[in-house]
Amino acid sequence: MAGPLAEFQRFSTGLFFLSLWGTVVGDKLLAVPLDGSHWLSMKDILEHLSDRGHEIVVLAPEINLLLKESKYYTRKIYPVTYSQEELEERFRSFGNQHFAERAYVTSALTEYRNNMIVIDMWFFNCQCLLKDSNTLNFLKESKFDALLTDPGLPCGVILAEYLQLPSVYLFRGFPCSLEHVFSNSPSPASYIPRCYTELSDHMTFPQRVINFLVSFLENLLFHCLYSRYEDLASDLLKRDVRLASLFQKDPVWLLRYDFVFEYPRPVLPNMVFIGGTNCKKMGALSQEFEAYVNASGEHGVVVFSLGSMVSEIPEKKAMAIAEGLGRIPQTVLWRYTGTPPSNLAKNTILVKWLPQNDLLGHPKTRAFITHAGSHGIYEGICNGVPMVMMPLFGDQMDNAKRMETRGAGVTLNVLEMTSDDLEGALKKVIYDKSYKENILRLSSLHKDRPIEPLDLAVFWVEFVMRHKGAPHLRPAAHDLTWYQYHSLDVIGFLLAIVLVVAFITFKCCAYGFRKCFGKKGRGKKTHKSKTH
Amino acid sequence: MAGPLAEFQRFSTGLFFLSLWGTVVGDKLLAVPLDGSHWLSMKDILEHLSDRGHEIVVLAPEINLLLKESKYYTRKIYPVTYSQEELEERFRSFGNQHFAERAYVTSALTEYRNNMIVIDMWFFNCQCLLKDSNTLNFLKESKFDALLTDPGLPCGVILAEYLQLPSVYLFRGFPCSLEHVFSNSPSPASYIPRCYTELSDHMTFPQRVINFLVSFLENLLFHCLYSRYEDLASDLLKRDVRLASLFQKDPVWLLRYDFVFEYPRPVLPNMVFIGGTNCKKMGALSQEFEAYVNASGEHGVVVFSLGSMVSEIPEKKAMAIAEGLGRIPQTVLWRYTGTPPSNLAKNTILVKWLPQNDLLGHPKTRAFITHAGSHGIYEGICNGVPMVMMPLFGDQMDNAKRMETRGAGVTLNVLEMTSDDLEGALKKVIYDKSYKENILRLSSLHKDRPIEPLDLAVFWVEFVMRHKGAPHLRPAAHDLTWYQYHSLDVIGFLLAIVLVVAFITFKCCAYGFRKCFGKKGRGKKTHKSKTH
Repeated sequence: MAGPLAEFQRFSTGLFFLSLWGTVVGDKLLAVPLDGSHWLSMKDILEHLSDRGHEIVVLAPEINLLLKESKYYTRKIYPVTYSQEELEERFRSFGNQHFAERAYVTSALTEYRNNMIVIDMWFFNCQCLLKDSNTLNFLKESKFDALLTDPGLPCGVILAEYLQLPSVYLFRGFPCSLEHVFSNSPSPASYIPRCYTELSDHMTFPQRVINFLVSFLENLLFHCLYSRYEDLASDLLKRDVRLASLFQKDPVWLLRYDFVFEYPRPVLPNMVFIGGTNCKKMGALSQEFEAYVNASGEHGVVVFSLGSMVSEIPEKKAMAIAEGLGRIPQTVLWRYTGTPPSNLAKNTILVKWLPQNDLLGHPKTRAFITHAGSHGIYEGICNGVPMVMMPLFGDQMDNAKRMETRGAGVTLNVLEMTSDDLEGALKKVIYDKSYKENILRLSSLHKDRPIEPLDLAVFWVEFVMRHKGAPHLRPAAHDLTWYQYHSLDVIGFLLAIVLVVAFITFKCCAYGFRKCFGKKGRGKKTHKSKTH
Repeated sequence: MAGPLAEFQRFSTGLFFLSLWGTVVGDKLLAVPLDGSHWLSMKDILEHLSDRGHEIVVLAPEINLLLKESKYYTRKIYPVTYSQEELEERFRSFGNQHFAERAYVTSALTEYRNNMIVIDMWFFNCQCLLKDSNTLNFLKESKFDALLTDPGLPCGVILAEYLQLPSVYLFRGFPCSLEHVFSNSPSPASYIPRCYTELSDHMTFPQRVINFLVSFLENLLFHCLYSRYEDLASDLLKRDVRLASLFQKDPVWLLRYDFVFEYPRPVLPNMVFIGGTNCKKMGALSQEFEAYVNASGEHGVVVFSLGSMVSEIPEKKAMAIAEGLGRIPQTVLWRYTGTPPSNLAKNTILVKWLPQNDLLGHPKTRAFITHAGSHGIYEGICNGVPMVMMPLFGDQMDNAKRMETRGAGVTLNVLEMTSDDLEGALKKVIYDKSYKENILRLSSLHKDRPIEPLDLAVFWVEFVMRHKGAPHLRPAAHDLTWYQYHSLDVIGFLLAIVLVVAFITFKCCAYGFRKCFGKKGRGKKTHKSKTH
């Protein structure tokens, strides 16, 4: 009953869903995406929805990175106040900053400032959109059935309220478990590691102290990231708006989670787990890559990519990496667009782009060097390839920790690592069999699902369109204040009762005591004084 | 994209799963069921698993109610120390007690005592099983791949540990959210109503106070129900056993929940929701029932059953009910095995048994009078029939409250209701259109799922057999003590630091103050004394 049969079942089930549902009389969906790597998952879902007969409009700023034209959707372009050069410069600067030396004590602040290079632009973007009356009028007149958005950029969340549309959120869980903070999903700090801590779900006492303290910093981070969106929302909706209340309408959260990768934790019924939508069947390699792989001989290949946001590396670091790569017998296929390091070894081939999933799916692939972005991690799990991880920003450090605790990869600190470290890590994941065994175990669990995650995502978007939302999944917690939620008013009330009862009992006893003994005492005294 | 198409998709999907998976090379499953109505859901799942080629052994006491022979499974019979008469007498007594008058102040105790009539027998049953070395030896030698049990009776949970088998729990959520208590699934008392309170998820302040207090009584109830099983387990496993630790191995919980019916609340990733496995396509009615329904004319029929556990009612109550039923124009089909009430009206037909789901699925069915057991409620939702509910015991009062808050039914207190109340309730749910509209809305949500609940149940049992459990879904919370879980040690530690720092700061300030002013003061004094 094991592996291959189960795999066939899953795969056929996926095909079945697509063929059975076929082309349906379509609803109209508005997609408000986040430019960059986040867009890739949304695009997959939109393409499937389009195939199923729905009309899709994608809101795209006129200046963007990846939100290109497609036969699957219409783009509604809105003007923005920045240029293509500024956009690209910001992303380039963001990418390069991750290799800059930083002092340990200020590293959190440096990381925050670096993220703000991109986050600020998303805000300008949102500002442009929500102040553009032409676009807003177009959207109002278009009569959509639902809105699909990445709530990391709350622009779509605000728009859903403005247009009174039921919404579906597609989300990875970053920044900082926004989905749990806004959903009233309990997150005990005792076993749920906070973002940026690189902790696992099994913590020592000092680690639990750190995690507990960091959990309080989350509020501060949220304030820094999102308070200005409240002003934007208040302007648009012409009333005071708390962002949390918009997130708590009745969305369905499509979370790019799989508990093969995430630590098990409390969740809510309006959360649907679709981690691994990009776990596709391996496609045929092009002649170029097929030739590289075939030429690799018995040692096979190593696939190396730091994701779509980073393709250049400072020269010194690139040389250290090239040296490490040159010391293993495998052929390394390295996606790299910068100046080739002068010490590049013969086994290392630089390419401007590589078919990552198809290469990972090839039986000759021995290891995957990755920045530990969620897309890459899921492709690694899907194809059962052990990883050497060089996390750079965002959730990548925490992602790498998760894979490391599962014994499926080794993490390197990209700023501190030497060529020896890289060589050692690669040899470890390639020749220590436990890494391959662990990743294969994770892979078999990950792929053994009752329904393909992409089909599940499509189902829930359609569900929201069919039923105009999913209010039956909205927890009543959203209607409570924070002190009511934690029963603090109830506890206060019961404490007050206990205190009043204790006080009255004490007074009664004291009174009784005085009655019984006090008067006698006084009586005796009086008596005594009389006898004197 | 709405109703019928969606319905077809769901239905066909179900068929597809069964046909695609076909007959597979089977694993070997041990089922440890709970006799009575709970068995009905497990039976459905076992029949599907058997059709898919698995070998199934059902552990059944030689004296039982519903655990009969079948072509789908082999029974392993074990001896028990009670007779068929005693078993039936206990169930009869249990059923009849629900109609006995009871004082308000002692009603909780009466209910507890009444439940113990049956619960005690389950304990004797478990005791017989776990002390029967023949059966235990047979089980050890049988080399099962997994164990499926209803954990309301922890016998299966203990056996799973003894046989070292991965397990799947099939559970309704009673007694008292055992699944959340043992799973470390957070249950804030502020919006999650406790069992027996008949509260909804939106509570007033006094209700929240009651709910908060009741949440503390749950521990007491658990102690009363389960502490003796710990002794049984310790005897068998030859070590001190805490029942919670057995429940926290790495089971998959198949919960007979659907959030169309349950209030949304935090859950855990190892919980799978399969509420409504009994939502089958309506079968053809037998000639007898077809004739009744056809003869009912434009007014249609009302279906009346108090479930498999209760089929007799005290005469006085039965007459009041008969009178109420006689006052509506619909034909009433009443499952009733007692002496027919003398005042039975012409529109009321008594039957020993009725095809409940098929009748509820008939378009002429106007209302469903039910004891609000979960099976009946789900059949009512599935078929979109508004309900008049007469809850009797267990979770039925809470079930009825859930349906009432959703505007899909009216609850009657079976002890206090008059014939007028029954007549009024029936006319309300039949002629006030909102009840029909609400139950149809619930029905369309309930039936709109990406995969049929029965197929989902089958998938997860097979998953556990394939992967020898699901340890990747086990939350790390299970490895913490209660004070660690709530971070009380961390809070204590941080408070201690704050206090120590405050104390040192205070001492330093005091010392500094003395240095600056104190010495001067003393200096002056000394100076003064010298000058004196």
